[in-house]
Amino acid sequence: MKADAGGARRGRLTTPHGAIETPVFMPVGTQAAVKGLRHEALEELGARIILGNTYHLYLRPGHELIRKLGGLHKFMSWDRAILTDSGGYQVFSLSELRKITNEGVRFRSHLDGSEHLLTPEKAAEIQLALGADIAMVLDECIETPSPREIAQAAVKRTTAWAKRARAFFLQQALRNGELSQWQFGIVQGATFTDLRRESTQQLLEIDFSGYAVGGLAVGEPHAVTCEMAAVATELLPREKPRYLMGVGRPEQLADYVALGIDMMDCVLPTRAARHACVYTSEGRVIIKNARYAQDQRPLDPVCSCSVCKRYTRAYLRHLFAAGELTAAILATHHNIHFYLDFMRQIREAIEFGNLAKFSSEVQARYAAGPA
Amino acid sequence: MKADAGGARRGRLTTPHGAIETPVFMPVGTQAAVKGLRHEALEELGARIILGNTYHLYLRPGHELIRKLGGLHKFMSWDRAILTDSGGYQVFSLSELRKITNEGVRFRSHLDGSEHLLTPEKAAEIQLALGADIAMVLDECIETPSPREIAQAAVKRTTAWAKRARAFFLQQALRNGELSQWQFGIVQGATFTDLRRESTQQLLEIDFSGYAVGGLAVGEPHAVTCEMAAVATELLPREKPRYLMGVGRPEQLADYVALGIDMMDCVLPTRAARHACVYTSEGRVIIKNARYAQDQRPLDPVCSCSVCKRYTRAYLRHLFAAGELTAAILATHHNIHFYLDFMRQIREAIEFGNLAKFSSEVQARYAAGPA
Repeated sequence: MKADAGGARRGRLTTPHGAIETPVFMPVGTQAAVKGLRHEALEELGARIILGNTYHLYLRPGHELIRKLGGLHKFMSWDRAILTDSGGYQVFSLSELRKITNEGVRFRSHLDGSEHLLTPEKAAEIQLALGADIAMVLDECIETPSPREIAQAAVKRTTAWAKRARAFFLQQALRNGELSQWQFGIVQGATFTDLRRESTQQLLEIDFSGYAVGGLAVGEPHAVTCEMAAVATELLPREKPRYLMGVGRPEQLADYVALGIDMMDCVLPTRAARHACVYTSEGRVIIKNARYAQDQRPLDPVCSCSVCKRYTRAYLRHLFAAGELTAAILATHHNIHFYLDFMRQIREAIEFGNLAKFSSEVQARYAAGPA
Repeated sequence: MKADAGGARRGRLTTPHGAIETPVFMPVGTQAAVKGLRHEALEELGARIILGNTYHLYLRPGHELIRKLGGLHKFMSWDRAILTDSGGYQVFSLSELRKITNEGVRFRSHLDGSEHLLTPEKAAEIQLALGADIAMVLDECIETPSPREIAQAAVKRTTAWAKRARAFFLQQALRNGELSQWQFGIVQGATFTDLRRESTQQLLEIDFSGYAVGGLAVGEPHAVTCEMAAVATELLPREKPRYLMGVGRPEQLADYVALGIDMMDCVLPTRAARHACVYTSEGRVIIKNARYAQDQRPLDPVCSCSVCKRYTRAYLRHLFAAGELTAAILATHHNIHFYLDFMRQIREAIEFGNLAKFSSEVQARYAAGPA
């Protein structure tokens, strides 16, 4: 890792499943698939790492089945890197009747109501079984906003869980005779600067392969997200990767990178695509809008993706209006291209030392909206 | 066209959008898209002709809009051949409050309840506007089974409409200074041999570029479908293409070909794929079934498609169980490959003179079911 003057860093992560140029945006493949894209398309688009989700894969098809079939890479036939979220956020947002104790979190599956106990050790065990290149610790996610006492207690528990998760992970990894999998800690602390600092320092003492900033992008203003991320990155060691979880909108990505963030993920490009929202160099385009019914331009006139090379806005607009499956496929392809290409431009801007200029140009274009 | 001893024929249709080896199966792209497949995938799979639908495209986005944007090929960015159904069957099966008179059929749109009048001339006009390589005449579709009087009246009207459609089509095509588009007549007559013969003879007098057999595969036994198709093909001239509409299951295709059918279409491979039913050399596989949860074989062990080369039954089974969009994409790709490859095998069997043997082997495998 090397930092440029403004805090932004260009780097390279070397995993057992290939090298990843950073800063990187990671497409989300929650249930072992990026919705609407074949792996072949992701490869064509240059994705070097995708996300999988521990909560979802544990419940279906089950980590033991995936382990038996040779791990997640083999199961889904994806040879590039995979990062798996720990399930903490999904237990918090999807499951029913969850009860958090120091032991872990007891919850009912959103699929069939069955009862489960997710502990820091269990979350690590699942991710070891999946064979994730990067595993995340189980953290306690809380509502935003939350009172300080709640946030403080969640930090305390997140640290205690992180210690147990780290001990379990290292023990298991050593037992298996290999340490090729990485484990990241997750900074919590809601929107309290001192709690964020405390959380970061406590995780640093545990010593992870990398550090994530969690519990953000859940409704707080962008400036607050940035402030909280900055509190963490200021304390984090230069030589280890930093991952801001669950972000973000295109016009925000460069801000996070400027704070020294190396990795980001978000369902936005894929989810928005399925709802006819595409990202372009000129801003967001709601392609279902009647104004595009006769528009023979591509989604983005300066885009080089295979969708923009071939199909018109009029055709995409028709496919969305008609509810055709192919609409989601094409829009998702374009949006992922847009995000990954955007990150290529960010990396280039860092190398040329003009990230601030790049960022303000993007924000101006997104503020103005499409022509 | 040349026929082999058993009635099966190997041929080639030359359209303004490329040559088509026959017998051919045409994937269905009702609303200007084959559900779940990008055109790039269809090209990779070797599709040389696809279907579009007059009823759907007339209602949405409208044939005038498509004409204005350069025709259907340009609108959807598909450079290979397109055949458009006339809308007769869709008015019969989808629309509300339809009223058939000698003039045409008055109906309410299934989309917004708006009232429309589809006449033989209008159906031809729409298809000329779309720029279909092969246009179908408007026919009267009836319920199966129907009394003889109803079927007889429908044949009479179908013939009268076919005359008007042919006159209008030729007049318009000549006015535009080109006759590059073809128009096919459609044989009706329900399951009455003499009516089928009568319908065929009346259409022959009108003289179309090709002839379709319609109103079949709507619930009657396969043997009856074959009998009715045979009545028509026995009378049809050798030098013109014959199209059996809306068929069929893989194990039936060779039977139709043996009767001298050159062209077929069906939503089955795409629709079945979306419902987790895939076609293989060993028969149908319901891939959502729990028995495939740990099956690391491809969908079809002898298939050379890009899905079978990369993904396992266990993974596909998981994607369907999880309701992932990618499941439909992968299964559709495989099923269309299966159908098109199956037709390649049929064409080869005709050339080698062993279609009957090929056909009985397929039927035996499909009767036995998957291993």
